[in-house]
Amino acid sequence: MNELTPKDPDYEARVRASFAAQGLMVTLGASLVRVSPGKVEISLPTSTAISQQHGFVHAGALASIADSAAGYAALTLMKPGAGVLTAEFKINLLAPGIGERMTARGRVIKAGRTLTLAQTDVFAIHEGREKQIALLTATLMAVEGREGVSS
Amino acid sequence: MNELTPKDPDYEARVRASFAAQGLMVTLGASLVRVSPGKVEISLPTSTAISQQHGFVHAGALASIADSAAGYAALTLMKPGAGVLTAEFKINLLAPGIGERMTARGRVIKAGRTLTLAQTDVFAIHEGREKQIALLTATLMAVEGREGVSS
Amino acid sequence: MNELTPKDPDYEARVRASFAAQGLMVTLGASLVRVSPGKVEISLPTSTAISQQHGFVHAGALASIADSAAGYAALTLMKPGAGVLTAEFKINLLAPGIGERMTARGRVIKAGRTLTLAQTDVFAIHEGREKQIALLTATLMAVEGREGVSS
Amino acid sequence: MNELTPKDPDYEARVRASFAAQGLMVTLGASLVRVSPGKVEISLPTSTAISQQHGFVHAGALASIADSAAGYAALTLMKPGAGVLTAEFKINLLAPGIGERMTARGRVIKAGRTLTLAQTDVFAIHEGREKQIALLTATLMAVEGREGVSS
Repeated sequence: MNELTPKDPDYEARVRASFAAQGLMVTLGASLVRVSPGKVEISLPTSTAISQQHGFVHAGALASIADSAAGYAALTLMKPGAGVLTAEFKINLLAPGIGERMTARGRVIKAGRTLTLAQTDVFAIHEGREKQIALLTATLMAVEGREGVSS
Repeated sequence: MNELTPKDPDYEARVRASFAAQGLMVTLGASLVRVSPGKVEISLPTSTAISQQHGFVHAGALASIADSAAGYAALTLMKPGAGVLTAEFKINLLAPGIGERMTARGRVIKAGRTLTLAQTDVFAIHEGREKQIALLTATLMAVEGREGVSS
Repeated sequence: MNELTPKDPDYEARVRASFAAQGLMVTLGASLVRVSPGKVEISLPTSTAISQQHGFVHAGALASIADSAAGYAALTLMKPGAGVLTAEFKINLLAPGIGERMTARGRVIKAGRTLTLAQTDVFAIHEGREKQIALLTATLMAVEGREGVSS
Repeated sequence: MNELTPKDPDYEARVRASFAAQGLMVTLGASLVRVSPGKVEISLPTSTAISQQHGFVHAGALASIADSAAGYAALTLMKPGAGVLTAEFKINLLAPGIGERMTARGRVIKAGRTLTLAQTDVFAIHEGREKQIALLTATLMAVEGREGVSS
């Protein structure tokens, strides 16, 4: 359905540089695993530093990596120089975040001129088994020519 | 519209103890400002540690304090011993998170037996002026008798 | 927070003409009750023609009037000639739609250049008492210069 | 990921009987095309009776069939006697509803004890070509033993 040919041949370097500039990802300990046209995977090792009150991973931490995965999946398909901002997202939490590591896999559903719809599946990896624990859908906005907003 | 009389006279102590156990809030630097029946306010000083790539506060950090504010607003009205989990939330981002401090004010819209609907307004405080930058609506679930889940 | 001064002095006539052109509102039996800057109220008499399987008003019928109320609340603040399209909405259903009449009250939360955030409260009127049964938040897009899309 | 074995061997008859009792589907002219474990397809011929102001299919009509498709996909996996209610849904609208027919394909993402997450893809069929125009995610609740709520 989608045109998944990147308009920017340097899309991966651009996404990696932008990710490295997200202070929150560093603070949470998240890393960028994979970048391909329309798809991005982010990984987050579990620790008490990202927990909620019962010791599960906080919904906000899951939302953070899921939002970044959706946003960067969108950015892989945007024109050079365009920046990406999240207009809105919704996340459904299916099961508690329990496990050694959380993985967020974002993918573009539809890339439009201004708005892109992307979806992220979040999995908990626990004792070698992967279980889906959350689903995020996000509307991302391409921003061009606004001061301070690129990539 | 709502019955805002707490079923737990110790609701504030319970919310404060639970908030203190959220590792993510400590990691982000958030603090619990105010707790009253059906309402909770959380404050987050801005720093590069919670930024996205343009230097604004990351949507995930805003979602984290907004989700906690909604969840704890719901918890103020729950029975002693009940735990609160987020089933889903949606956040609309109205403006970039720019300012010295972000404030999330959660309030209960409707407290049901199992499900509670709450809403959080997020404001940026910049040079003494407050501006709404996000709106979150969340469905919270009361959990009773599940091992490891209370308050 | 919002600039609620209509950019179009004929905003009410414009909204009323557009509403009259919505075939779905006619089919459902909905009527436009009130139009003011940033606010629109729509009313829907209950009947089996709009029911779900248990005899309650179908969530889709509630969503339909709530979406129209949000969209027209946004349109009251848009420039002459601009059309309004819904980019996305979320609806939380708080209680079954039971009663003689359903009322949707939409209001603008933030009117931006391209995107407007609006919220609609839906009430059931049953034996003279009003009860909130749903809450919708919607992102509306102003569309200019696209063929076939105005008001 | 999901247990897609129906707990009710008569799941299809049950879904078809419930659909037939939805007055709104009759009013809109929608029909139930396909029912299988965890999946339901609903079709809606286009007409001015379901339009918005520009002549496109109204977002509320799309949401109506998408919500029913998600709800019935969930119902195929529920126990005999359980009823299904929508707790919330979100719909992203990707393109205007233009075409001879709209098709909503709902599928269960995760069936839990009380809450089921389902997703519906909505397509416009225009001159023989199918194009995705909307994506809905819904939280459905299984209701047992509540008067007036079954199937």
